[in-house]
Amino acid sequence: MADEVILLDFWPSPFGVRARIALREKGVKFEYREENLRDKSPLLLQMNPVHKKIPVLIHNGKPVCESMNVVQYIDEVWSDKNPLLPSDPYQRAQARFWVDFIDTKVYEPADKIWSTKGEVQETAKKEYIEALKILEAELGDKPYFGGDNFGFVDIAMTGYYMWFEASEKCGNFRIEPECPTLMASARRCLQRDSVVNSVPDPEKIVEFAFKIRKIYCV
Amino acid sequence: MADEVILLDFWPSPFGVRARIALREKGVKFEYREENLRDKSPLLLQMNPVHKKIPVLIHNGKPVCESMNVVQYIDEVWSDKNPLLPSDPYQRAQARFWVDFIDTKVYEPADKIWSTKGEVQETAKKEYIEALKILEAELGDKPYFGGDNFGFVDIAMTGYYMWFEASEKCGNFRIEPECPTLMASARRCLQRDSVVNSVPDPEKIVEFAFKIRKIYCV
Repeated sequence: MADEVILLDFWPSPFGVRARIALREKGVKFEYREENLRDKSPLLLQMNPVHKKIPVLIHNGKPVCESMNVVQYIDEVWSDKNPLLPSDPYQRAQARFWVDFIDTKVYEPADKIWSTKGEVQETAKKEYIEALKILEAELGDKPYFGGDNFGFVDIAMTGYYMWFEASEKCGNFRIEPECPTLMASARRCLQRDSVVNSVPDPEKIVEFAFKIRKIYCV
Repeated sequence: MADEVILLDFWPSPFGVRARIALREKGVKFEYREENLRDKSPLLLQMNPVHKKIPVLIHNGKPVCESMNVVQYIDEVWSDKNPLLPSDPYQRAQARFWVDFIDTKVYEPADKIWSTKGEVQETAKKEYIEALKILEAELGDKPYFGGDNFGFVDIAMTGYYMWFEASEKCGNFRIEPECPTLMASARRCLQRDSVVNSVPDPEKIVEFAFKIRKIYCV
């Protein structure tokens, strides 16, 4: 029997896109189901009763939740193609460390840049650039965080790369002068087939961000 | 050459203890180095320049940071004894999901119970019990979160189990009537050799909590 793989997702989500990319890196066929986050489907509520959040990967009826947990699950189940995590335990620990850094230090300021204004937004911009600079230093002269290969940390970051333009426009600032190496790696990531097929048009994300921004920043 | 394993730690830390327990589950000999968190050692600052936090495991000169990342590293390096994560990818994903739940939904209210008072503390107590009840339901009739075996999720929780008495005394409430099954599992965990040898005397934690509480709740 073929695997049944369903992804509950929301198109501009920097988290949902991680699962999409991982599945495409592995060549896994899946059914994409768009969720309306203001009227969540009974399936989403049933499959992720604790957090009620996307993405949820439903593999042969069984749910896996939390985006990077989903990515790691995909890497372990479809282990024959394009490994996302390194095999060496030390390198694996480093990759998990940086993903945790991204989810704690990049997420919050990124979120505030498009949902706040004034001083709060200014502080968020500073914190965002500070976190990106730490990542820039970690990247060094490697093409990807995964070294020569697009990997676990790159997938985590691609969710933010696809939001770079919207972040810059909402915050009226530029990332490239501060983080040229990271920006070069971002472009490299955004050109991959698995990513091109998973990431929405940046213009649409900008439009979405400003639409939501109007609600948050009245 | 034998492995050189050093753990930078702080005795009452619910995070540090996770690394201690994992090392003892695996029978790994290690040098424990107590950190003064008000005057961090140059070694800690050098080994964890990003977060500057304990625990840090230094294995043959190379640092691994973030407690559950350390535990997973230990599990992968010393894989021949007492596996902490299951081998099945789905079960592994479930274990990681619950550890993430603990670190996001248990940590914050637990922290507030001993560091705040009044309404903030009351809300924290409610949120704490709510989170523990979700864990109680997940535990079901299993002796451990790891099923018949003490595992990854149990190690994550033991840091909180060792603080239960201090939390109850600081918050003037009781956990057992709300979560009898979780409490039974907590007692089981706290009796393990690896845990007994890693966890400080509960009285000392109570004393520590009230000492710090005096500073936060003036």
